[in-house]
Amino acid sequence: MSSFNVELKKVVDDSYEIEIGYELSNQLVEDLEKGLVGKIKRFAVITDSNVRDLYAKPICEKLIHSGFLVDMFVFPAGEKSKTRETKAKLEDAMLEKGYRRDCCVIAIGGGVVSDIAGFLAGTYGRGVPFINYATTLLAAADASIGGKTAVDTPLATNLIGLFNQPKKVYIDIACWKTLPDRQMRSGMAETIKHACMASMDMFEFIEENLDDIMNFKKFACEYITENNCNIKYQVVMKDEKESGLREILNLGHTVGRAIETVSEYKLLHGEALAIGMAAEVLLSARLGYMSEEEAQRVIDLYKKTGLPTEIPDYIDREELVHKLYTDKKVRDGKLRFVLQKGIGDIVEYTPGVYARPIEEDLAREIIMEL
Amino acid sequence: MSSFNVELKKVVDDSYEIEIGYELSNQLVEDLEKGLVGKIKRFAVITDSNVRDLYAKPICEKLIHSGFLVDMFVFPAGEKSKTRETKAKLEDAMLEKGYRRDCCVIAIGGGVVSDIAGFLAGTYGRGVPFINYATTLLAAADASIGGKTAVDTPLATNLIGLFNQPKKVYIDIACWKTLPDRQMRSGMAETIKHACMASMDMFEFIEENLDDIMNFKKFACEYITENNCNIKYQVVMKDEKESGLREILNLGHTVGRAIETVSEYKLLHGEALAIGMAAEVLLSARLGYMSEEEAQRVIDLYKKTGLPTEIPDYIDREELVHKLYTDKKVRDGKLRFVLQKGIGDIVEYTPGVYARPIEEDLAREIIMEL
Ligand SMILES: NC(=O)c1ccc[n+]([C@@H]2O[C@H](COP(=O)([O-])OP(=O)(O)OC[C@H]3O[C@@H](n4cnc5c(N)ncnc54)[C@H](O)[C@@H]3O)[C@@H](O)[C@H]2O)c1
Ligand SMILES: NC(=O)c1ccc[n+]([C@@H]2O[C@H](COP(=O)([O-])OP(=O)(O)OC[C@H]3O[C@@H](n4cnc5c(N)ncnc54)[C@H](O)[C@@H]3O)[C@@H](O)[C@H]2O)c1
Repeated sequence: MSSFNVELKKVVDDSYEIEIGYELSNQLVEDLEKGLVGKIKRFAVITDSNVRDLYAKPICEKLIHSGFLVDMFVFPAGEKSKTRETKAKLEDAMLEKGYRRDCCVIAIGGGVVSDIAGFLAGTYGRGVPFINYATTLLAAADASIGGKTAVDTPLATNLIGLFNQPKKVYIDIACWKTLPDRQMRSGMAETIKHACMASMDMFEFIEENLDDIMNFKKFACEYITENNCNIKYQVVMKDEKESGLREILNLGHTVGRAIETVSEYKLLHGEALAIGMAAEVLLSARLGYMSEEEAQRVIDLYKKTGLPTEIPDYIDREELVHKLYTDKKVRDGKLRFVLQKGIGDIVEYTPGVYARPIEEDLAREIIMEL
Repeated sequence: MSSFNVELKKVVDDSYEIEIGYELSNQLVEDLEKGLVGKIKRFAVITDSNVRDLYAKPICEKLIHSGFLVDMFVFPAGEKSKTRETKAKLEDAMLEKGYRRDCCVIAIGGGVVSDIAGFLAGTYGRGVPFINYATTLLAAADASIGGKTAVDTPLATNLIGLFNQPKKVYIDIACWKTLPDRQMRSGMAETIKHACMASMDMFEFIEENLDDIMNFKKFACEYITENNCNIKYQVVMKDEKESGLREILNLGHTVGRAIETVSEYKLLHGEALAIGMAAEVLLSARLGYMSEEEAQRVIDLYKKTGLPTEIPDYIDREELVHKLYTDKKVRDGKLRFVLQKGIGDIVEYTPGVYARPIEEDLAREIIMEL
């Protein structure tokens, strides 16, 4: 018996820039002309059926006008498309058009587009560069930092995928104007969560400037976007492979995800999250981590944003309690919640541990009240 | 417009050990007990229908006996199974059994198993560790270094996949005894290619010890395995992302791959490679990079190994010439070949460039002679 050592230690630099602004398509073209992805001249633009005509087509035209080789690959809009089958169809279409390894993928759309396109880029020819042009608030708030990409399968959401960092992210706030109102509000749920988790200043800003945000005013939208990026970055940068700190992003998600599932996705993710945040602030207040007033202030901001903060009647609350046990934070059969300390801070339960064990009875009590 | 910089520079250590020997299953169990993959206790053994009873089952039993949680996931043997669909079926079976992110994949089998299992592990839960227990000479000679994993699609072989390094590779020479003779000889084709490319000592060793190798004698098999690993390592370590040097691994493959395709896979990869090597040494000799005697010596060794060195009659030679243009080394419509300098060295055409442009007429001439 003998053995052979393969030494593969190296420095990897996945750094990238996030550009935040109004109408960034010219900036994208300019960046590519300046060599953002080196000498690559061939681009696969991946988008969905809603975003195609609104934003993807005009961007493709600009790129073609600048002499790049561009094809657009479109799939039907919606979470239902976020599957291995859609990925395979897109791959086949790219292969059919002769795409090999000297290409770059550009995702234009929301979180569904960037999740599929980022995953696809990571495995196409064992990895080609990808660029993310985010057109929803949720993609801006959440999906543009962390490098998570994934698809859903019949038995699990977001479990098959990759960590794959884009070469650059464009957050085009001008795109939000065409977002369905419900989508925009739903995206605000994560934004408010970020504020609750990490910044009283941001929370107060949203309280005071909610109308400006909902009317897509430049300053207010850029402010929340920069803060969203900054907060998510602080968390995931310190914990790129998901050990402890990243758990705090789960604030509101223990109850939120369970409600989303039990509602059979009648509630959007952000709507379910808003209810989950209401549950979690009540729990935090009950345990003395925040005052009743602070809890109410959080609930009021969600309400003002037009998001639900009560469990809809059609949801079976016992089923909901039961569903809590499918949460990935559950350990040794015990529920665990991330909790707020006042507004803008998180409870560190023991050093490096942010999810606190919670008795089922207490969780049930809160759920019955809500 | 404002911008935000995501800094993601870090040191990554993908180093791993290759264990080479006879019957390594106890070693595997011991390594896992000693914490090769940390605290993970749950293992998904991926194998094919031929290797299942021969090696995978006994290894699973040993692991279970040692207290690990183990399930076996089996797919039908053969290259035809190396698809996205097989990967998806395996993923669904693992999800069904409750596998989440705290598991490790063990590939037991040849190159098809390690390609699928390595790719699957790289995207399961955005990446779980994987271990490779190689049971074929080809997997030992070629697939255990470089980190390439992939599946085939209707329009391309090995194009959808990942670079994913295993935590450890076991090359169990005892397994070769049950390999079909044709598979064993086919595996020798890459081994001889490695010698031609980089080591006259290894070439002479194979000439002198071919019987010992084909009779699975410990010393001879370990010798070629170590040399295979060493040579491939030297090449891919210096060029992990496939720029220049890795091209030399294509020695013999320009004609080889074309023959494999035109034969409609009647020829095994190694058989087609042997013919490709014959073509390439003739070309090298014609261009003065090696003597006629050296070229003949290479051809003789392939013959002695029981591999074909002539183009079978059923192959249309004009179609073959045509097929050469689908080679990935083709640039600006010109054929490019990697060529040998004597035995044990490679022609460096210009600094850092190893694939030399070849006129179609010359390529045709060689193909017509062969
Ligand atoms: N990778 C991550 O880190 C991460 C983080 C959070 C969420 N996600 C994922 O993101 C997805 C949700 O993101 P999403 O809400 O952006 O989903 P989405 O991409 O489905 O977009 C929502 C809807 O809005 C449409 N749309 C997008 N941009 C538009 C625009 N500018 N104008 C009009 N319509 C537009 C879409 O076609 C879709 O119908 C989920 O799949 C979730 O898992 C990923
Ligand atoms: N990832 C890489 O770097 C790399 C390098 C070279 C080849 N490959 C891939 O490897 C594959 C070819 O490898 P392979 O020849 O090992 O193919 P394989 O895995 O299909 O094995 C060949 C046959 O032998 C059987 N078998 C395996 N081990 C056996 C044993 N010990 N006894 C009896 N039967 C056994 C298999 O069931 C199969 O029928 C191709 O798909 C090729 O693309 C990958």
